[in-house]
This record gives sequence, C-alpha cells and structure tokens, in this order.
Amino acid sequence: MKNVPFKGIIAYPITPFDDHENIDIPLFRNLVEKLIVSGSHGIAPLGSTGVMPYLSDEEKEAVTEATIQQVNGRIPTLVGVSNLTTERTVHHAKFAEQAGADAVMIIPMSYWKLTDDEIVAHYDAVAGKISIPIMAYNNPATSGVDMSPALLKRLLEIPNVTMIKESTGDIQRMHFLRKELGEDVAFYNGSNPLALAAFSAGARGWCTAAPNLIPELSLELYTAIEEGDLEKARKVFYRQFELLKFIVGKGLPRAVKAGLNILGQEGGNLRSPLKPLTDTETQQLENILKNL
Amino acid sequence: MKNVPFKGIIAYPITPFDDHENIDIPLFRNLVEKLIVSGSHGIAPLGSTGVMPYLSDEEKEAVTEATIQQVNGRIPTLVGVSNLTTERTVHHAKFAEQAGADAVMIIPMSYWKLTDDEIVAHYDAVAGKISIPIMAYNNPATSGVDMSPALLKRLLEIPNVTMIKESTGDIQRMHFLRKELGEDVAFYNGSNPLALAAFSAGARGWCTAAPNLIPELSLELYTAIEEGDLEKARKVFYRQFELLKFIVGKGLPRAVKAGLNILGQEGGNLRSPLKPLTDTETQQLENILKNL
Amino acid sequence: MKNVPFKGIIAYPITPFDDHENIDIPLFRNLVEKLIVSGSHGIAPLGSTGVMPYLSDEEKEAVTEATIQQVNGRIPTLVGVSNLTTERTVHHAKFAEQAGADAVMIIPMSYWKLTDDEIVAHYDAVAGKISIPIMAYNNPATSGVDMSPALLKRLLEIPNVTMIKESTGDIQRMHFLRKELGEDVAFYNGSNPLALAAFSAGARGWCTAAPNLIPELSLELYTAIEEGDLEKARKVFYRQFELLKFIVGKGLPRAVKAGLNILGQEGGNLRSPLKPLTDTETQQLENILKNL
Amino acid sequence: MKNVPFKGIIAYPITPFDDHENIDIPLFRNLVEKLIVSGSHGIAPLGSTGVMPYLSDEEKEAVTEATIQQVNGRIPTLVGVSNLTTERTVHHAKFAEQAGADAVMIIPMSYWKLTDDEIVAHYDAVAGKISIPIMAYNNPATSGVDMSPALLKRLLEIPNVTMIKESTGDIQRMHFLRKELGEDVAFYNGSNPLALAAFSAGARGWCTAAPNLIPELSLELYTAIEEGDLEKARKVFYRQFELLKFIVGKGLPRAVKAGLNILGQEGGNLRSPLKPLTDTETQQLENILKNL
Repeated sequence: MKNVPFKGIIAYPITPFDDHENIDIPLFRNLVEKLIVSGSHGIAPLGSTGVMPYLSDEEKEAVTEATIQQVNGRIPTLVGVSNLTTERTVHHAKFAEQAGADAVMIIPMSYWKLTDDEIVAHYDAVAGKISIPIMAYNNPATSGVDMSPALLKRLLEIPNVTMIKESTGDIQRMHFLRKELGEDVAFYNGSNPLALAAFSAGARGWCTAAPNLIPELSLELYTAIEEGDLEKARKVFYRQFELLKFIVGKGLPRAVKAGLNILGQEGGNLRSPLKPLTDTETQQLENILKNL
Repeated sequence: MKNVPFKGIIAYPITPFDDHENIDIPLFRNLVEKLIVSGSHGIAPLGSTGVMPYLSDEEKEAVTEATIQQVNGRIPTLVGVSNLTTERTVHHAKFAEQAGADAVMIIPMSYWKLTDDEIVAHYDAVAGKISIPIMAYNNPATSGVDMSPALLKRLLEIPNVTMIKESTGDIQRMHFLRKELGEDVAFYNGSNPLALAAFSAGARGWCTAAPNLIPELSLELYTAIEEGDLEKARKVFYRQFELLKFIVGKGLPRAVKAGLNILGQEGGNLRSPLKPLTDTETQQLENILKNL
Repeated sequence: MKNVPFKGIIAYPITPFDDHENIDIPLFRNLVEKLIVSGSHGIAPLGSTGVMPYLSDEEKEAVTEATIQQVNGRIPTLVGVSNLTTERTVHHAKFAEQAGADAVMIIPMSYWKLTDDEIVAHYDAVAGKISIPIMAYNNPATSGVDMSPALLKRLLEIPNVTMIKESTGDIQRMHFLRKELGEDVAFYNGSNPLALAAFSAGARGWCTAAPNLIPELSLELYTAIEEGDLEKARKVFYRQFELLKFIVGKGLPRAVKAGLNILGQEGGNLRSPLKPLTDTETQQLENILKNL
Repeated sequence: MKNVPFKGIIAYPITPFDDHENIDIPLFRNLVEKLIVSGSHGIAPLGSTGVMPYLSDEEKEAVTEATIQQVNGRIPTLVGVSNLTTERTVHHAKFAEQAGADAVMIIPMSYWKLTDDEIVAHYDAVAGKISIPIMAYNNPATSGVDMSPALLKRLLEIPNVTMIKESTGDIQRMHFLRKELGEDVAFYNGSNPLALAAFSAGARGWCTAAPNLIPELSLELYTAIEEGDLEKARKVFYRQFELLKFIVGKGLPRAVKAGLNILGQEGGNLRSPLKPLTDTETQQLENILKNL
C-alpha cells in the first residue's frame, strides 16, 4: 500500500499571537503538547485553523520547526505548505521535509481559477522535489476551485500524492470519491459537521480543530466507528454536533481561541483583521460547552 | 407517542400509462403488488415518482383507490395529496382518508414562494379536515420553498402533523433537524444517495423508488442499520450507490420504467412531455444493474 | 420578418377573486380595461401575475374569453397556456387561438427537469396544432429548467416560435442571447428590476405587472428608450426602481392587489394559500408609492 | 464633493514575467505607456489583472514605483494594496502614497470570512494612516465576502473612502447601490461584460483590462455614453462583447498575454501555476480579435 501515515483524529492547532500580533511560539508549543497528550493520532500545523495564509514565510518556517521539535516523533505531523505560486509551494514543501515532517498538505490556492492541467503541473512540480507523501486537499470554499473526482484521479497517479482530504461538506461527494477512486484510496474528512456521515462512509481520518476543545469526544467518535458501533457513534456525535457547527460557523481560529479562554486556558490573540468573538457569541459558546 | 405509522422502507410506485397516455390501472396494481410481496414496509402512491402533478383530479382518485384496494391492509399506505391551492389539497386529503389511507404526504407546492405564515395556514386548513396523520415534506428543489427547522417546529405543533420527510440532500440539515426538533420526532429520508448517511443519523425510514428495481438491497441496508452493523451497512450501500445516483440523476419515473424493462418486466409508458431514456442511457443502466 | 405582434409595454393583469375565492370576472375586465386605456401596448392574461397555475381548466378558459372580449382588438393579446403535460398545453393553446388571441406564451413547466429533446418535442407538438405565434419563456426560478441559448436557437427553428421572453434576471444572458441568436430575434424582458438594462441591451419589449400601479412610469421609460435619451431613461427608471424591486420581492399578485387598494381601487381577493401582504409590508408599499 | 480622481476608462495593466518568472519591469513600463498614449483616463497597477496576490512585497513595491515613474503625472494612478492582514495592507498603502499614487484600491481579502465590524476596522486602520482616497472594492468571487450596501454605507463614512468598485456581475446590485448610497457616490464597474448596463445605470467609470487589447473600443463606448447616445453605445458594446466575455472567462492575465502576442506585441510570461492559453483557446481569441 501507498505511504499513508495518518488514521483517526488529525488535530489542527491554532497559531496564537502575542499583544503585538507576533506569533507566540512557547504558547503554540503548549497547545501542540496538549493535543498530543490528549490522544490525537496526528498533528497538522499551518492549516486554515492555524491561519497559515496570514503568516510570512519566516513565520511559517518557525511554526514548522516548533511543531516538529515539540512532537518529537510521538505522532506523525502533516504540515500545510500551500501557496498561490508554485515556487513558494515548492520552497515550503522542501523546508517541511527537511525539518522532519511526515507529510505535507496542499490545496490548490486560486486567485485566478486554475485549470485542471495547471493544477496537475503544480502538484507535479512540488511532488518531484520532495519524497514525503502529499495530501491533496479539496475545499472549494477557500481555494476557489472544486477538484473533480477525475482530477483527483490524475493527482493520485503522482507517486507521492497518496491521500485526499475532502471538505466540500457534501457527503455524496465522498461516496462518489470512494466509488470512483476505489476503496484503497485513503480519504480524510475535513468538514466537522460531517464527521459521523464521513466515518460511516469509510473515511480513514478526520482532520479537525475540535480536539483543541473537546479531545475526548473526538476520540470517542472515532473509537465507536472503529468498533462498528453505530448506536454509540451516533450518540457521541450528537453530543458534539452543536459545538462542531458553532466553531465552523464562527471561524475556527476565533472560536477555538474563545473556547480555550472559556475552559480557563491560554489561547493568545488573533492577528488583524481577525477579531475575537463578540460577547454574545462567547456566551453562546459557553452555553454549548457547558451542555455537552 | 404520536401516530407515526411508518418505519423502514417506504416504497414509491411509478404511475404507468398505456399507448394513449392514459393510466394503466391493472399494471399499476401489479407494480404495487410486487413492492408489497418483496417486503416494503409501507407504500406511497402519488409521489414525485408517481408523477402526481401530471395527473387530473379524477386520475389521482383512481390511483388512490387502486392502491388501497391492492394493499388491502397488509402494509400502511401514504398518499400524496399536495396541490398548489389549499382547496384542492383539502379535497384530496379528505378523499384519501375516506378511501382508507393511513396517512397523507404534503409538500408546500409553490409557484409564488409562500411565506411561513401561509405555509402554516395551509397545513392547518388541511389538518383540520382530516384525522389521519400528515407527513410534512421538505424538498426545495421541487417545491421552490425551503422549510426551515423553525417552520417545521411550528408545523409539528399541529396535532396530526407527526412526520417529517427531508429531501434537501444535505445531511447536515438532518443532523440539525434531529438536534432542534428532538430525538422523538419521526424523520424520514427522501434523498436516495443519502440513504446510508441518513440512517446513520437516525432517520426512521427511507422514502424511495429503489425497491421497484432492487428491493432486496433496499431492505438489506435497513436491516444492517437496525442491527447496528455499520460495516455491513456500508458494504450494501456502496453496492447500490451507483444505481441510486443514476435513477435520481435521470428522473425517477424515466429510470424506473427503463429499469423494469431491462429486468424483463412491464413498466408501461410515460406521459408527455416526459420521454423514455435514450439508448445510451438505457445501456448505462443495464451495465449498472448487471454489476450490482 | 417573422410574426411578432408585440413591442413596448406588455401589461400583465392580476386575476382577482371574490369572497369565496372564485374568480371575479367583472372586476378582471375592469382591470384589463384600465391597462388598455392607460396606454399598454399589449396585454397578457394568465401569466404568473395572473396566478395561472392556481386555476382550473374552466377558469383559464373563462379568463381567456373575458380578456379577448374586453380588449376587442384594440391592442394585441398574449395568452399564457403553459401546463405540465403536453396534452393540456395543446388544449389551452388551441382554445386561445379559437378565442382570438394574437399569440400564446409557453414556459416549459417542469416537475421532473426536462431534457432539451423533451422541451423541443413539447413546443413542436403545440406549434403544430396552432397557427398563431408562440413566445418561448425562460424563467428557471419558476419552471425549474434553464433553457440555454443553444436550446432557444432550436426552438426558434419551429416556424411559429417567433419571440423569446427572458427572466433569468441576468443581463449578461440577454447580451449573450442577442449575440448568439442575432439582432433580428425579438426578445422581451420579463425581469422588472432589469428594465433599464434590458432596454439598453436592445429588448423589444417589457413584460410587466407594473402598469397595474404605475402605467405612466412604465410608458415613460419605454418612450425615453425609443428616443435614445439615456439620461431621461435612467432618471425615470430610478424613480420606479424601488417599486419594481418591492413588487417582485413580495410576489406580484400580492403586491399588485395591495397597491391597487392603496390607490383606492378594487383588487379583489387572493386564492389560498396566498395571503395579503402584512400590515408592515402594506405600509412599506404605501411609502414607496407616495415617494415615487 | 469628495476627492474622486477617476472618471471614464481606468486601465489595468498585466504584470509580465521573464523566462525565469521574474517581473520584467522594462516590458511592464512599455505596456503602461501604451495604455496611456492610447487614451486611458486612469491606470491601475497591482489589480487582479496584474496578479498582485502572486507577488512578493518587494515586487509590489517595484511595480508601484515603475508605474508612477512611467505615468509621470499624465493621468491619475490607482494602486492595489489589498492584503490578508491589516498590517501588510497599511504597509503597502503607505508605500503607494509616498511613491506618489493618487489613490489606492482595497478589497477585503478573506481567507476566514470577515465580519462587518472586522471589515470596517480594517479599512479604518488603513485610512487613518494615509491621506489619499481609497476605492473600496466589492468582488465576492475573489475576496470570499460580499459587502452589503449597508456595509458600504459604513465604509463611506470614513472620510477618505470616496469610491466604490462593484464586481458582483449583477446589475441590480448596482441599481440598488445607487439608490441606497445616493447619486453623488462615485461608483465604478469592475465587471467587463456588464459595461453597457453599468454605464446605463450611471457608473462613473469602468475598471478594465480590455484597453490592453482594444483601447479604441473601450473609449468609444465611454464617449457614446457621455454623449447620451444609447444606439451608438449599444452598437460599440456588442462589437466588443464577445471579447469581454472571453478574457473574463479565460482569466485576464492569461487572455491579455495571449491577445498581445496575437496582435504582434510582447506580453511576457506568466508566473506558475498560471499557464498560457491552449492552442485551441488562442485560436478562438484570434478569431474574436479578427472579427471585431
């Protein structure tokens, strides 16, 4: 089988900032540590949750190194290296590999909507420069381009593109992918409110920021699925459903930061223009967390 | 608990026509009989599959009576009585009750998009004139109006509105409904390719035309879910997924008629402007049925 | 040139009901008379404004006859004859022709989304049975099917399909149509808030319910366009823009009825489930009419 | 009146690259010069056409300086300074002002969808640091956020936010803006195929890449509108409509580069992942340019 280092709960840390909106690396390492010890099966810095597109090249490199040092081989790491230009994507992918990442995640960021051929050439250019596996990530809402199953099939022909992360939020797409690409393809769910449906459909893992706030519930859902216990999976899913909807609806970095504060933990600051949740929203989140 | 006569597989027969595009009642009774003996848990004439909107008042009444006579109490019947005007909806609902239907299904048909108050008044007017339960049906693609969870909550306050059928095709909506309306509300899935996800989410039944062609697979999925066997459910679902997608994509009346012919059975004619599948489409369907 | 009896303002009367929700034919003739004497260039009963889909066959025939008798040849009449089945569409088209209509309007109503071939066969079947011209009407929001320029081109090959009414609300579509179908094709705008843009783009007429409330402003816009006076057209358009948006947003039958009452005229009742505007909405309309 | 330095045709140059995908500044100055001498009323570097998001900070600064030196005060310049973070937006806005720009254009780039308050704070932070006017740019397709008329109203309360550029592609939005914000607000059209409709609706200017290929036709349309000659405006618009649709559909940087080559001019290279048009597409463009 192809090299697919991830299975289960892949946790996405936020990137916390200090009072001057600079990254707070010690706090970041703290947050990563908590995700590890609470049982996550993988860790993914520099995702949407980690506000990767808001960071400079140097900051991305610092976050990559901090993660890998902190994880220290205990669980596999998946580093986000997407960039609008191919040249910068190659740069960050090579940096991640050299720093010790187990895999990189790449979404075809698009200001100008890319053609299928441009996307294949983009992945191809990166894949040729590294030897660790690549997770291709489809999320039209943020990338502006919806990769068809036919295009994903082409990407999977590149030897080290071994994983697919699907975040259209449409479970039928996931069914279709599995049917088209075959049962052996490792696909991962990136849409939080779809967690139950995606696992039911056979997803190999769940890429999620939820473990920042409710690590036990994330894991319990996965365990129930692994045991084939649908009743239990359904129950634990509905317990967390409202939280999953809330953190997605309000924006993961804002919601996770607010949630950490409510739980009595440090979440750091956000980088402008992102602002904290309003008081009303924070109160809503407090109620949701209380009633889990 | 409220009066909810349906659980499991609720089968939707097509309405077959003869060479002059008149309804072929004997053939219709035949098709209904096959759905009963192959194990369906309920039967629902005059749905979308049964091209109800293309029929005259007299034809709808004839189909209603034929169904109830043929079923003869063996399984519960759910009769579609939706109409653009409140007056005609009341008329058909009363007719169905007098003919012996166990429940009626009503979608808020809209040429002019209805307000929430208009929809509540519409259901209220019908509910006050019958004593059998009503299934409220949400399918914005055909009705032109998307009933919010808040509106469905209002409808459920009407004593004999006891069931919800959801066909937005969005599993998150079903999660939200269950969370908002409570676990006791009987909700049914009307989107074929969502069958696995909807049952996983706790749907009480599946409203489907699939048993016209693959009754065993429809039932096997339901049985696996009832047994809480996720692995088996997933397997049997993926076996039929391509067929479910095809019959929805091509239009249920066209696809079911073609499928019956492929299986060596009579499917009758369609009523214009609906035309049979093309040769290429028929060939596709033949391949799908062969490879189940 | 092909037979295109319409140019300018084609007015759509509402269908008023009495206290028992039966059509009030004398009031209807009154409303038609006012549209004629206030200067409309054509009259179109049984449109969306006239709630055609909510009427029985007999009622449609009565409205058709009442219109033609009242108009008495003073301006051309365009009768809506659309129906879900081909058989009923043929029936009403023949009835309209025999009653003396100058043309019929047909939208491809779709419960089950029609294929291009089904739509062509549908128009063909009707066109073969009448000799008056047909206006093909594209309005995906109500018909459920969006006729492509390529399909419209096919329809225009049928000899008595001579006019196109476009209501997608997208001015670029109108540009594209004119470019694709040629400058000689008579296309009409059916989207009220697009009136200025559509006339600027070269539309031959405007199908509108606005003359029920503001006949002078509708005509002034057309006159300014005919004179090529862009400045004046823009000015008179912006005067009525808010009203056009309001009546479309609230549903034409509801809004026209309320507007007639505000203007001290009889508008009759609506047929359930349609209900009158709320008090707040009526107040908004009153303010808009006052500030024209 | 507020400080609104632009009226008429505001031309957007592409940013050309050399064989190593580095910016070719001499060629860029050449392209800018041609836009000036062919009659554009304003020039806007670092727009979408100029692939601003694909450039490094240093490259953006080099392009800004090159533009202002080349223009040398002959026509006003509008520099794009949008960035995901507020800090970088402030940086580039200040740089543009110091370099001598007449105004800056800012779109609220969003990876995480911004709230109205976040957007206002973002513009406010930038506006407080510069004294030249700001054009607020609404283009949900690229920014991921659709600024409502109510939000634009709030932005216009910031003293040096004096212009609105609208690119939703919906002419009704432009009507609504003008009605809501008042006739005095300077709004500009950013959607090429909407040029006729937007000028008819009263747009003060047209932000467009078309002058790179057809400067005379862009100007002729504006002149016809200025003269209030609707017939002539319509005619010249339809002449260029197909080209406008093509360059938008294929992506402005790709299409402009290909068009320049067809016209026998230098267009430079694109930066990966963007690739040149295919041969078939280039042939289509050649035909369109030939048949203008």
